[in-house]
Amino acid sequence: MVMDNILNRIDRPQDIKPLNDKELKQLSAEIRETLVKTVSKNGGHLASNLGVVELTMALHKVFNSPHDKIIWDVGHQVYTHKLLTGRRDKFDTIRKEGGISGFSRPSESEHDIVYSGHSSTSVSTAMGIAVANQIKSNKNYTIAVLGDGALTGGLIYEAFNNAGAHKNIKLIVVLNDNAMSISPNVGVLAKYLAVIRSKKGYFRMKAATERLLNKIPLIGKLTSNLLFKVKTSVKNMIYKSNFFEDMDFRYMGPIDGHDIHTLTQALEGAKIVNGPVLLHVKTIKGKGYNPAEQMPSQFHGCPKFDPETGEFLSECDSFSSKFGDFLRLQAAKDKRICAITAAMSLGTGLKGFSEEYPNRFFDVGIAEEHALPYALGLAESGMLPVFVVYSTFLQRCFDQIIHDAALQNRKIIIAIDRAGITGGDGETHQGIYDVSLLNGIPNITVFAPSYFSQLNGFLVRSLYHTDGVVAVRYPRGGEPSMPENYTPTTENYEIYPKDGGKTAIVTYGRLFSHACGAVEKLRKEGTAAFVIKLNRIKPIDEKAIESCLGLKEIYFFEEGIKSGGTGETFSRLLLESGYKGKFILKAFDNCFVEHGNVENQLHKYGLDVESMYTLIKKKSENANE
Amino acid sequence: MVMDNILNRIDRPQDIKPLNDKELKQLSAEIRETLVKTVSKNGGHLASNLGVVELTMALHKVFNSPHDKIIWDVGHQVYTHKLLTGRRDKFDTIRKEGGISGFSRPSESEHDIVYSGHSSTSVSTAMGIAVANQIKSNKNYTIAVLGDGALTGGLIYEAFNNAGAHKNIKLIVVLNDNAMSISPNVGVLAKYLAVIRSKKGYFRMKAATERLLNKIPLIGKLTSNLLFKVKTSVKNMIYKSNFFEDMDFRYMGPIDGHDIHTLTQALEGAKIVNGPVLLHVKTIKGKGYNPAEQMPSQFHGCPKFDPETGEFLSECDSFSSKFGDFLRLQAAKDKRICAITAAMSLGTGLKGFSEEYPNRFFDVGIAEEHALPYALGLAESGMLPVFVVYSTFLQRCFDQIIHDAALQNRKIIIAIDRAGITGGDGETHQGIYDVSLLNGIPNITVFAPSYFSQLNGFLVRSLYHTDGVVAVRYPRGGEPSMPENYTPTTENYEIYPKDGGKTAIVTYGRLFSHACGAVEKLRKEGTAAFVIKLNRIKPIDEKAIESCLGLKEIYFFEEGIKSGGTGETFSRLLLESGYKGKFILKAFDNCFVEHGNVENQLHKYGLDVESMYTLIKKKSENANE
Repeated sequence: MVMDNILNRIDRPQDIKPLNDKELKQLSAEIRETLVKTVSKNGGHLASNLGVVELTMALHKVFNSPHDKIIWDVGHQVYTHKLLTGRRDKFDTIRKEGGISGFSRPSESEHDIVYSGHSSTSVSTAMGIAVANQIKSNKNYTIAVLGDGALTGGLIYEAFNNAGAHKNIKLIVVLNDNAMSISPNVGVLAKYLAVIRSKKGYFRMKAATERLLNKIPLIGKLTSNLLFKVKTSVKNMIYKSNFFEDMDFRYMGPIDGHDIHTLTQALEGAKIVNGPVLLHVKTIKGKGYNPAEQMPSQFHGCPKFDPETGEFLSECDSFSSKFGDFLRLQAAKDKRICAITAAMSLGTGLKGFSEEYPNRFFDVGIAEEHALPYALGLAESGMLPVFVVYSTFLQRCFDQIIHDAALQNRKIIIAIDRAGITGGDGETHQGIYDVSLLNGIPNITVFAPSYFSQLNGFLVRSLYHTDGVVAVRYPRGGEPSMPENYTPTTENYEIYPKDGGKTAIVTYGRLFSHACGAVEKLRKEGTAAFVIKLNRIKPIDEKAIESCLGLKEIYFFEEGIKSGGTGETFSRLLLESGYKGKFILKAFDNCFVEHGNVENQLHKYGLDVESMYTLIKKKSENANE
Repeated sequence: MVMDNILNRIDRPQDIKPLNDKELKQLSAEIRETLVKTVSKNGGHLASNLGVVELTMALHKVFNSPHDKIIWDVGHQVYTHKLLTGRRDKFDTIRKEGGISGFSRPSESEHDIVYSGHSSTSVSTAMGIAVANQIKSNKNYTIAVLGDGALTGGLIYEAFNNAGAHKNIKLIVVLNDNAMSISPNVGVLAKYLAVIRSKKGYFRMKAATERLLNKIPLIGKLTSNLLFKVKTSVKNMIYKSNFFEDMDFRYMGPIDGHDIHTLTQALEGAKIVNGPVLLHVKTIKGKGYNPAEQMPSQFHGCPKFDPETGEFLSECDSFSSKFGDFLRLQAAKDKRICAITAAMSLGTGLKGFSEEYPNRFFDVGIAEEHALPYALGLAESGMLPVFVVYSTFLQRCFDQIIHDAALQNRKIIIAIDRAGITGGDGETHQGIYDVSLLNGIPNITVFAPSYFSQLNGFLVRSLYHTDGVVAVRYPRGGEPSMPENYTPTTENYEIYPKDGGKTAIVTYGRLFSHACGAVEKLRKEGTAAFVIKLNRIKPIDEKAIESCLGLKEIYFFEEGIKSGGTGETFSRLLLESGYKGKFILKAFDNCFVEHGNVENQLHKYGLDVESMYTLIKKKSENANE
C-alpha cells in the first residue's frame, strides 16, 4: 500500500524531523528493504550502508543539512543519506551509467559537501570548514562520520592531532564503530576500541551522560559546558582517559547505533559541547539483513546477488583471484615471499595466501604509506615482499615509492590491481593515474600483462628476472578475448600479426584485445595495420621504437591519463629518433571519468574496437584527400 | 695535543665500547666541537645533531651495528653516527660535492641501513626488519630513532598501530623528544608529550625502573620479562596509561638524553623486553652550543655561520622570503587568504605572515596529507587557502592533490618551494618530481616563474585570474641573472629575443637564465637561436606549439625528471601537430641526483649555459655534415 510508505514522503531531510518513534522505526525498515533490493540488482556497498541507517536518520533529525555540513568519510556509506536528501526516485539508478553515484558527489546534491571515495580524509575537511566557520563567526555545525577502519589510516591521526589543538571549533566526529573496516579490522587500535566498547566504566559513564543530558535544556549551552567540565574532571579522576581524550577531543559513548532515540539524544548533547567532540557509536555491519550480518566482508562491496538467499550471482575468474593463486603457488616454492595488503585481502585475491601462509601475510590496515617502508624492511632482511594494492590507492604512497622503494634499490614488487577504469565506483576509484605516477619515478620497471597466463609470466619475471622495484599492473575483472594465432609471451613487446604493416596501433594491457579487433577490420579493408603490444611499459624497449621508424602512421591507445603517461614517453622517443610519420595519442585527456559500464566507457573515450577502427579510418582518409 | 683526542681513536663503533665515563664525557665534547666547526663551514643540520650526541654514543655502546640495525628517522641527525662509524676523516666533506652526505646513505657505510630524508618512516622499516628477524629466528635488535616531530606525521601512527599488534618482535623505538620538530612542535601530541614529561608519576616510575634494572643481571632475560609484567600491572593500576601503551608498546621513560650512564642503562633495559618497546628520551635541541640552544629553529638546517658568535653569514633575498612577503601583502588586502605549512614556517618564508595573521596561519605539523583536505574544507567555506610546501614533501600528498583538490574543483593554491635541484641535501630532497607528478593530474594549472617580480605576478594570477587548483613553483635560493632587454610578464609563454629564429631552446623556471646565455653565445656565432620560455607549464599554450612548427630544431631543457614531465608533453604535442624538425629533450633521466653545488650539478647534467651551448653546437654541426 503506497499510502503507508513513509520513505515516499521524504523529499528532503527536513521531512524526517516531525516523525515519531514508531514512524522512524518503520522508515528504517523501508530504507533497509530498499537498500537490499537495489544493491542486489546493481551491486555496490551493502553491509556498511545497512549499518548506518539509524545513524543517518538521526543526523538528519538533529542537524540542518546543508547549513550544517555532514562529511562522510570514504563516502560509500551514503545510500541512506541519498534516500533522505531528494534522491529517492533516482535510487534504483545507483552506480549505473548516467545514474547517481555510489559515493558522495556534490554535483548531485547540495547535501553532498565534497567528493569522497578514499579513506580517512573526513576529519581534515570537516576541520577546515569548522575553522572557517569560527573565523567568520558562523554558528553552523560540521560533522564528520567515519568508520573504525578509517582509524587505521595515518591521515586521520594527523587531523586529530591538529583539530584537538583548536579548542573552540564546532566539530563533531561520529565514529561508526562496527569492528570492521573492509576485512576485519587490524592493528592495535581495533583491539583498543574493543576494550573501550566492553569497559564497564564507559557504560556507566554512558548512563551518566544520558542522565545528565536529559537534565540539560537543549538551549542552555552555558551551563552545559560548565557541567561538562565538572564531569570530565570527575571522570578523569576515576577512569583511565582514552585515546580520543588524549587527542583533546571530548569523548562521548559508546552508544547503540541502532537506537534512534539514544542517537538523537547523544547528537543533541554533542551540539552543546564547545570544541571538538567525538561520539563513539556501535553499529552492526550488515544490520537487518542476515546474509550481510553473517558475512560482512563479502557484502562490503559486492556484486549482484539473490536477495532471498544472499547468494552472489556467479562471477568468472578475475585477474585478482588468479593473481592470488599464482602468488600462493610461488610462495609454496619460495619461503622468502611475503604478501602485504592495505585492508584488501578479499578484493586482491589474497585470502587463500593468508590462510596458507599466515606468518608471511600482512594486512597493515588502510595504511598504504606504511606498507612500502615496511616492505623495505622485509626486503632489507632478505625477504621478497609483494605489496598488492588497487591502482587508485597506490596514489597514496607516491613519496614512499620514491623514497622508500626506488631510491633504496631493494627488491620490492608492487602488484597493481584494478588498473584502468573500474566500472561502478566512478571518479574517485579509477585506476588511470598509476602509469603516469610510476613513469616519473627513476629505477622502476613496470609490466602490463593482458592475459592470465601473462600475469603469471610477469609475476615470475618480476620475482626472479628483474632487479629493483617492479610493478605489475592488471585490470579489474576477467580476461579479455584473445585474437587468433596469438600466444602471450613475457617479451618486452610483441608484434601482432607478425607480418606487421605500415599502420601501427601501439597499446598495452587490456586494450590489446580491442586493438586486435580494430586491426582485423582494417586489414579486411586493405589497410596494412598491426599492433605493437608493449608488455614492459617502463622502460620502453628501444627496439620497439626502432621498429616504428619507417611507419606511415602510429596510433597510441592508452587506458590511462594522457599527460605524463607511457604514450607521451613513446612520442618523445619517436621524435628524438627522427620519426617522420603521423602520430596520434588517444587516452583520458585532462578529465575525471565517471562511473559506468566499462565497455561503454571505453567506447565513450575512444578506446574500444569500434572507436579505434573509426579513428584510423577517418585519419587515413583525410591523409589521402 | 692530538694524542689526547679520543675521537681520533674511534675508527668503528666497537671502539667506543671500552671507554669509561670520563672518556665518554670528553668524547662528547670533542664531537660537539667537530659538529659546530664543520657545520659552521659547510652548512647543514646542527641543532638536532647537537641534541643526540650522547644518545648516539649510548646506542653504539649498547648495540652491535650493523648486526643490530639502527634506523634513523629523517636521517638528518646522523652526524655523530657518521663520526663513530668510520667516517670521521671524511667528515669535513659533509654535504659537499663528492663528500659524504648529510643524511643516512647505505652507499657510504654498512652502518647506514636505508636512505633516509623524509620524516616518519623509521618505525615501518624497523618493523619490517624485526618481523623478518622473527621469521628467520634471528636474535638481532632493530632500533628506530625518531624525533617528536615525526609523531605529527600520520605514517608513524600507521606503523605504531601495526607494530603493536606484533607481540614478540624485537623492536626498540627511541623517541628523541626535544619538544621541537623543525619549528616548535604543533598539535595535541606535542602538548601531550609535555604533560608526560612533567608527570611526577612517570618520574617516580623512572626511578623505580632504574632501581629495578640495576638489580637485573643483563643476561637474565627470563626473569626480567616476568618482572616487567608484574611491574606493568602494578603501574597500570596506579597510573593512567599513555598513548604509547595504548598502542601496545612497553613504555620506558622519560629519561635524560644527555646522561650517557642513564641512557646505556635504559637501552640495556629495552633489550630485555620482549615485544615492541618505546624509550622516551628528553634532549635539548642545540645542546652544548649556546646560539643553537637559544635559536633551535634557525639552527635546525642552517647556512654557514661564524662559530664564535653564531651569526649567519649573510644570505641574499630568496624566492622563499619574497614569497612570504608577497603573500603577506595580499593577505592584508584580502581577508580570505589563509596560509598552510607542514612544519616549515621558517623555510617557506611564512614567519611574518604567521605573526601578522595568526588566525589565518596554520602549521599542521609534518602532515602534508592532512594539509590538502584541510585546505579543501577552508575553500569550501569561502576562504582562499595557500598551501606552501617544499617540492620534495609535496610528493607526500599525490593522492590528496587528486582526490581532495583537483576532483573537487575548489580554489586551492599550492606554492611549491625548493622546486628543482636543491644543493647540499641530496637524493632525498631534490625537487625534481613535482612537475611529472602534477602533469598526470587533471584540472590543475601549473606556473613556473623565473624571477621575483614574476613570482608575485603569478601569485596574483593564481589568486584572482585562474580557476580551480593552481600550483606556482619556484627554486631554492636567489634570483637568477636577467638577460638584457627582457621584462618578465605573466603571459603563458614568452619569446626571447623577440625576433626569434630557427633554433629554439624551450625551457621554464630557473633554466631560462641559462638558456639566454646559450642563445647569446650561439647568436654571436651566427646561429639564429632563441628561447621559448614557458611560464604556464600545464596546460601548455597551444600557440607555443604553433610557434614551433616551422622550426629546424628544438632543444627542450628541463630541471626535472624526464619521464612524464612537461618536455614529453611538449614533444607529444609537436609530434601530433606534424612538427618535422629535430627535437632533443635534456632532463634528469631515470636517475637520482646526489648532493652538491647547484651550478656544478646543472653543468654535470647538461643544464647550464655551457652545456646547452655545447650540445646545440655539436648537434648542429652533425646535421651539417
